[in-house]
Amino acid sequence: QISQLEFSPEQAEKGEFEHFMLKEIFEQPRTVANAMRGRIDLEEGTAKFGGLNMSVAELRAIDQIVITACGTSWHAALVGEYLFEELAHIPVEVEYASEFRYRNAPIEKNTLVLAITQSGETADTLASLRETKRRGHKVLAICNVVGSTIAREADGGIYLHAGPEIGVASTKAFTSQVTVLSLLALFMGRIRMLSLHRGEKILKALQAVPDQMERMLEQNGEIRRIAQRFASVRNFFFLGRQYNFPVALEGALKLKEISYIHAEGYPAAEMKHGPIALIDDQTPSVVIIPSDAMYEKTLSNLEVVRARKGPVIAIATEGNEALAKQVDEIIYLPQTLEAVFPLLAVVPLQLLAYHVAVARGCDVDKPRNLAKSVTVE
Amino acid sequence: QISQLEFSPEQAEKGEFEHFMLKEIFEQPRTVANAMRGRIDLEEGTAKFGGLNMSVAELRAIDQIVITACGTSWHAALVGEYLFEELAHIPVEVEYASEFRYRNAPIEKNTLVLAITQSGETADTLASLRETKRRGHKVLAICNVVGSTIAREADGGIYLHAGPEIGVASTKAFTSQVTVLSLLALFMGRIRMLSLHRGEKILKALQAVPDQMERMLEQNGEIRRIAQRFASVRNFFFLGRQYNFPVALEGALKLKEISYIHAEGYPAAEMKHGPIALIDDQTPSVVIIPSDAMYEKTLSNLEVVRARKGPVIAIATEGNEALAKQVDEIIYLPQTLEAVFPLLAVVPLQLLAYHVAVARGCDVDKPRNLAKSVTVE
Repeated sequence: QISQLEFSPEQAEKGEFEHFMLKEIFEQPRTVANAMRGRIDLEEGTAKFGGLNMSVAELRAIDQIVITACGTSWHAALVGEYLFEELAHIPVEVEYASEFRYRNAPIEKNTLVLAITQSGETADTLASLRETKRRGHKVLAICNVVGSTIAREADGGIYLHAGPEIGVASTKAFTSQVTVLSLLALFMGRIRMLSLHRGEKILKALQAVPDQMERMLEQNGEIRRIAQRFASVRNFFFLGRQYNFPVALEGALKLKEISYIHAEGYPAAEMKHGPIALIDDQTPSVVIIPSDAMYEKTLSNLEVVRARKGPVIAIATEGNEALAKQVDEIIYLPQTLEAVFPLLAVVPLQLLAYHVAVARGCDVDKPRNLAKSVTVE
Repeated sequence: QISQLEFSPEQAEKGEFEHFMLKEIFEQPRTVANAMRGRIDLEEGTAKFGGLNMSVAELRAIDQIVITACGTSWHAALVGEYLFEELAHIPVEVEYASEFRYRNAPIEKNTLVLAITQSGETADTLASLRETKRRGHKVLAICNVVGSTIAREADGGIYLHAGPEIGVASTKAFTSQVTVLSLLALFMGRIRMLSLHRGEKILKALQAVPDQMERMLEQNGEIRRIAQRFASVRNFFFLGRQYNFPVALEGALKLKEISYIHAEGYPAAEMKHGPIALIDDQTPSVVIIPSDAMYEKTLSNLEVVRARKGPVIAIATEGNEALAKQVDEIIYLPQTLEAVFPLLAVVPLQLLAYHVAVARGCDVDKPRNLAKSVTVE
């Protein structure tokens, strides 16, 4: 059997960019559009997929979803949990693949398993897939590399079509995973209780993302300035709530991976149960604080950090001028739905990690100790 | 209504100990025994409780458990997830109370909600309790303070009987919570598929814990020496798998809370998906590596850390002499069941955090920025 390569070698060149990671961050308006191409059904307010290999009746019979993944893909899975629970009212359990494969977890009948992996070769995710298939559950793969082992062994799946990701720190794969999860959750919602009207609203918000991302990327210079200001610190916190908690985890992981700064993500309100002890004037926090239902609550978490003299970089919604006076730095994002916010909010965090690492003289594309895809256990 | 205090003021004195935290660590053989007192039915190989206020038929009808908690209690909840899933085959979802209260998560019928809190006054946990009760679910409280708001508002519950916990960093409450969760999981298993024989085995292992903890505490001097050796580092990792992953999180939280060292817990195999980039010869890892089914796998995770020159403090099972040659420091625990190991493994981590903080001159009982019980949102 001959597998066809989807991309030519030229596409794996850096072009005008200093590093693959930066190139891949800037590709995201295009790769997110690729992840949506041919999958949007505006008239029905839903999504469609070629390779699920499951009937609508089978998909409607699903009572529970288990998502298994590692690293950045695990963060995309956490966003997926919120998406499926909000849009389709299906309970979701997100599992570290490395733990799940050995856990003998009780899984109900009518469970759908999603395996998320950029490479399609992640050893722990592959083992989880095999374990759940052995137990008779359907597994769908969400992966980037066409013809990869996980893509071949799953019952069906959705490709990211993001093109080769060369930078070891995953960026465009994450946003493509979240895009695909958004479409799948929308579809699962539309065959359940989600109205045409809400379906259309979500699709329109998703369709606006590529242009909104372009506008985010125009702030690259400003984010570089912020990164240089904080490049010498030793610790960083990333705080967010609800949909933005996984984004906080992902922002922290990016910084850890390429700058070797000890960064940690937390649900913002959980800080007061211990981690706030670490906050001082040398420990900045990135607080993701959109103008949404959680705004006032997140603001009070932010104020607790400020009261301990912790510098704050806010990721806020355009038009929130008042917040600028209360924080050290502010990065604005365009208005969008809560469910779509993570796709935009992660971009400045990727740029922040990139510029901090560059300022510290780190090898961004090949960070120490890390491999691009982890094919050993 | 008059609530009776369970403990006299004298019991809240430090006695021979320099700090309340150390006193409370040393109380654990007694507080764990208190958590079991009157609750063990050896003949039937099960546990019994006075205040559940639910019939056996109601408890057997439970299809899912949601546990809501914050901070250290959230770590106890994660141990509970493994306990209920292994001993009773009931799927468990563990939720940060601060996120859960705003999430409108899909909850199936026949869900039992457990609210875990030392003080019984934690604002986010109380709000979660009220939200789930409003939706018609039964809520059981697992808390320490008799007559507290959460104890009064829950449908039923189990008290820890651990006595007042004065140190801001929770220690004896954690082990009592895990003890109570073990007994409850055993009971839920015994009214399902758990055999008398296995029930007896688990009870015997639990009954051995107080004496085994005494033996752990005899290593206090040795753990102080290890703590002094590593007291000046800036970062720490805590790694464990399965039952010991939450213990790793808890060990990291203790160190964060009282020593202000940036410590982070991870499932050991997840390190290779990013965090391993932080490992160098100045970044020690505590690896919890009992001689159980996961031993070889955890050993290979440990070797990855060693290959990056990361110092390793192993928490291992007595008799594993071979491992001592591969690590910088080793602390031995007595043999026990996998399900009971967390109760023992957390003790050296508490002592390690305590002695590191003392060596750094920190105010152990009243760490900066923290309150004992978080009664605000």
